[in-house]
Amino acid sequence: MAKTLEFFFDYASPYSYLASEQVEALAKRTGAELRWRPFLLGAVFKATGNVPPITTPNKGIYLGKDLVDWTRYLGLPQFQLPSNFPINSLKANRLGVVAGVQGRIAEFSHAAFRAAFVHGKDLGDLELLAELAREAGLDPDKALAQTESQEIKDALRRNTDEAVARGAFGAPTFYVGDEMFFGSDRLMFVEKVLSAA
Amino acid sequence: MAKTLEFFFDYASPYSYLASEQVEALAKRTGAELRWRPFLLGAVFKATGNVPPITTPNKGIYLGKDLVDWTRYLGLPQFQLPSNFPINSLKANRLGVVAGVQGRIAEFSHAAFRAAFVHGKDLGDLELLAELAREAGLDPDKALAQTESQEIKDALRRNTDEAVARGAFGAPTFYVGDEMFFGSDRLMFVEKVLSAA
Repeated sequence: MAKTLEFFFDYASPYSYLASEQVEALAKRTGAELRWRPFLLGAVFKATGNVPPITTPNKGIYLGKDLVDWTRYLGLPQFQLPSNFPINSLKANRLGVVAGVQGRIAEFSHAAFRAAFVHGKDLGDLELLAELAREAGLDPDKALAQTESQEIKDALRRNTDEAVARGAFGAPTFYVGDEMFFGSDRLMFVEKVLSAA
Repeated sequence: MAKTLEFFFDYASPYSYLASEQVEALAKRTGAELRWRPFLLGAVFKATGNVPPITTPNKGIYLGKDLVDWTRYLGLPQFQLPSNFPINSLKANRLGVVAGVQGRIAEFSHAAFRAAFVHGKDLGDLELLAELAREAGLDPDKALAQTESQEIKDALRRNTDEAVARGAFGAPTFYVGDEMFFGSDRLMFVEKVLSAA
């Protein structure tokens, strides 16, 4: 039976963006089924007592350089940190859940991550979100309306609570069964475990 | 002219241990001159407002697993977190400075890191430190006495202050000229920069 790779992320997380550009190829190479699972990174931080790396001044400065190093290393377009970083991604994450229900989460996720971290756009902007939804093949008005439904809000909250209960403290976080991996820089471990299946 | 790779570390830092097992081969491959520079990680945390990863519960749990993943990945002996972790490494770090003055810092560093993270020994123990100094080719009594000299204390403090001023916030931290890299998991970037020399 094919193993499942669960990928927990928040559209506000630049390291989740780095992971988003690698997970599909990794799943393909290993024959794993990929599950995109948006969650609320801010709520994860609050629940676990962790802090966003950018709040430590020296770390915040380095983070910008590290992300540029990574995008070069991975051959991705020039990295850009949105001017309004840290981003308010609540609506975007809910839209990710909506896209998941409709089978378009990979498309929506790439559109959202690239809008933020390649083009420096503000994922809190509703017009941008409508455009990204359209790009991903969703009906933008319907999809945005759905983000206000209790069902979608609850589903995002459940993803968040589940990740914290399973040991997450940041993003991206991966699971292969019960085994957890933290960070886009641990994908080689994820691949080893999936390859050993 | 050969480039210099500066390696700032603390003997209490398990990720510094992982780096210590890789930096010499990296320096050799790239023709770089390696400088081992002990500093006080606790003072770096205090100066920068950073916190040891182990203080966030979910992160602390994951850290133990991540270190095991890394030692397997690198082909190192089974990892062990000393039972008294976080370690009091002040004396060990001073002894590292003494070893540096005498041209034995690589030998001492390997002995100290492996005692802590392969054998789980307590680097706060003076008898162990004497043994490690001897192993590294130092006169143990003289070397331990020197750790109480103002000169050695000041040298360790200067390494610490310098690293913070240059942007460090944790360990291990590397510099190639003015360019900083944080973490044993960024050595591929260090290697790229050194190779491009």
